[in-house]
Amino acid sequence: MALIVHKYGGTSMGSTERIRNVAKRVAKWARAGHQMVVVPSAMSGETNRLLGLAKDLQPGSLDAAAMRELDAIAATGEQVSVGLLALALQAEGQPAVSYGGWQVPIKTDSVYTKARIESIDDERVRADLAAGKVVIITGFQGIDPEGNVTTLGRGGSDTSAVAVAAALKADECLIYTDVDGVYTTDPRVVPEAQRLSTISFEEMLELASQGSKVLQIRSVEFAGKYRVPLRVLSSFTPWDIAIDEEAKSGTLITFEEDEKMEKAVVSGIAFNRDEAKITVVGVPDKPGIAYQILGAVAEANIDVDVIVQNVSHDGRTDFSFTVHRNDYTRTMDLLKNTVQPATGALNLIGDAKICKVSIVGIGMKSHVGVASTMFKALSDDGINIQMITTSEIKTSVVIAEKYMELAVRALHRAFGLDAAEATA
Amino acid sequence: MALIVHKYGGTSMGSTERIRNVAKRVAKWARAGHQMVVVPSAMSGETNRLLGLAKDLQPGSLDAAAMRELDAIAATGEQVSVGLLALALQAEGQPAVSYGGWQVPIKTDSVYTKARIESIDDERVRADLAAGKVVIITGFQGIDPEGNVTTLGRGGSDTSAVAVAAALKADECLIYTDVDGVYTTDPRVVPEAQRLSTISFEEMLELASQGSKVLQIRSVEFAGKYRVPLRVLSSFTPWDIAIDEEAKSGTLITFEEDEKMEKAVVSGIAFNRDEAKITVVGVPDKPGIAYQILGAVAEANIDVDVIVQNVSHDGRTDFSFTVHRNDYTRTMDLLKNTVQPATGALNLIGDAKICKVSIVGIGMKSHVGVASTMFKALSDDGINIQMITTSEIKTSVVIAEKYMELAVRALHRAFGLDAAEATA
Repeated sequence: MALIVHKYGGTSMGSTERIRNVAKRVAKWARAGHQMVVVPSAMSGETNRLLGLAKDLQPGSLDAAAMRELDAIAATGEQVSVGLLALALQAEGQPAVSYGGWQVPIKTDSVYTKARIESIDDERVRADLAAGKVVIITGFQGIDPEGNVTTLGRGGSDTSAVAVAAALKADECLIYTDVDGVYTTDPRVVPEAQRLSTISFEEMLELASQGSKVLQIRSVEFAGKYRVPLRVLSSFTPWDIAIDEEAKSGTLITFEEDEKMEKAVVSGIAFNRDEAKITVVGVPDKPGIAYQILGAVAEANIDVDVIVQNVSHDGRTDFSFTVHRNDYTRTMDLLKNTVQPATGALNLIGDAKICKVSIVGIGMKSHVGVASTMFKALSDDGINIQMITTSEIKTSVVIAEKYMELAVRALHRAFGLDAAEATA
Repeated sequence: MALIVHKYGGTSMGSTERIRNVAKRVAKWARAGHQMVVVPSAMSGETNRLLGLAKDLQPGSLDAAAMRELDAIAATGEQVSVGLLALALQAEGQPAVSYGGWQVPIKTDSVYTKARIESIDDERVRADLAAGKVVIITGFQGIDPEGNVTTLGRGGSDTSAVAVAAALKADECLIYTDVDGVYTTDPRVVPEAQRLSTISFEEMLELASQGSKVLQIRSVEFAGKYRVPLRVLSSFTPWDIAIDEEAKSGTLITFEEDEKMEKAVVSGIAFNRDEAKITVVGVPDKPGIAYQILGAVAEANIDVDVIVQNVSHDGRTDFSFTVHRNDYTRTMDLLKNTVQPATGALNLIGDAKICKVSIVGIGMKSHVGVASTMFKALSDDGINIQMITTSEIKTSVVIAEKYMELAVRALHRAFGLDAAEATA
């Protein structure tokens, strides 16, 4: 007997018919003798409907008082879900009880719309589990020290599930989603992409932050911090699949590096086209110049991703970085109006038609030549690299957007990730 | 400056446009210097939508565990309303804060789906009012001693508003609804029906329980118990009507009998056609017979309204009572299968095509001849009276359903309630 946390997304909870299927699946696990805690999202579309109503009444930017109301409104979506799932489980003959975040309580800080979980009281939940009940807890929300409802921000239900699993020291946290696991890359770009049966926590972090939209990144960080074994698996498999088979499906996110390192140097290829590249050309190469440029950008609340500074020549250097494409125009205006005059930069060059492609693998830590394999594969296809950054388990390149699919396929092949090769 | 509680029904909260109008009206009162507390219902249709989802998942009868979930689900409707209204008030430049019943807290017993309010903590609300905020509190719900969400049952938002007004010792509780006050009878039946500018609490109770669907009866009882001045008025008047005019509109429910008694013997005519009449014919006239019949009915959870026992002859008597029309067949079956054999009653006669018409007036207490005026008016129109019951401030007759409108119009005229006469 194990203590298992299930998390179901909005699509899985999208109708009473689907909620009934979730209930049958959970009841199956309970009947197998497991203590079950379930963290569902709001029914799909519900959070957007609620936020739409709110936006209709306060279209402008929101102060703290308004954000408090927004959180209270948005949190009701999950409050409906948990009640409905409890009813569905009871209808299956499985005792169940639901709690809102404030009832557990899941205590957070007071940062409305993006609160962070500070602690979870497990007493009430443990008592219910001991009494044979499935416990259903709202995702996405908690309560602050003053008793106000807070939400964790988009995708926060993943984080809630992992946090609950950590607080209860659960044996495993299963995230049911609309994909059947983590892939070596996006199968829509590379049909040969394979599902990984395990992936290390660090790799998952890199893949998630690089645009593999399987799991909310904060939930992965949380799982790493508290060493919660996390499994991503499909909510589309029939609910009555054998429990042994289901328990091994999807992708397990692990913390054991050793075993994994033997297997593959590169686990997956991540990519995104959400960024734009900006180069400040010919800035004087003197101490504090990076801060002069990026400090202004940060003050404008613009997130910077890749940063590259080239070697200087003639006392001047070029300074390049990427921002989210939505921030591109604003960043260029900011640089032109304040940073360029202040620094005496010779020119500004921007390019929104770029993409970032990354190879991710914990094996890179101890294997040499990985980056050069990457550069050769891109070169063989005539793809010019504009920027390069590396970390311990990731190497990223910025290239022209039009080459994105070509690059991803080339790298997937070069690192032996294609299904045909792997199963050969 | 006064402390005023406003209550708005689901229709008034039915869209963001309407919520904006509610906000403008409330802001107008706040600007006039009043401390404002608002208790809104869920957006119209929302409670039914939520209960529909729940019923889809548990179609059968619900145990306590299921009713707990039902309450948690249904309560979210008002939780959305209060947040939206707070946003709308803030957008009007009026500081506002919303609370769920559990946050105030509004403490109730644990009878899910029809909980009763036990106490209301006013500390948090008073602090907000003192800080110049409009406080918005969910209607319809509270929290039980174990921290579970409870609801007060249909129409419970009226009760919440009155209870909040009582706890805060508000100067007046204004119930905004889709009618502009309490009428002498239903204007759809009697076009000459007039709005009453005041009505006594006792008369309101009788009118409400007799089918004048203006206010939930429990809210009126609550108002009487705690002497909360209650005003029913229209939410359809333009929000920017002069506040003096608005404050005097609708119908005020008063506790001062003396003044009222001078004015009219009968204040209004109530009626309903929801009942069915059953007569147990020829039961032995001996002690305990009423209990033998009605005890069985009560055990089957069937509510009985009018009860009449005729004088006995030949050691036998006839025993008549009315039940809700929905319970008619079930009651007849019950009587036939158990009560008739047990009591040796000679026959059972049922009639579902009846109605009950009542005259209500606090003046009846001290005026003689009121009942005979009623009977004469009905007789003049050839209407046969089947049953009669009387209380201090009400006389009800059961007649054939087809005569209902005729009877109501005749009585309205006979007691001088027609607008033409009154204004003459």
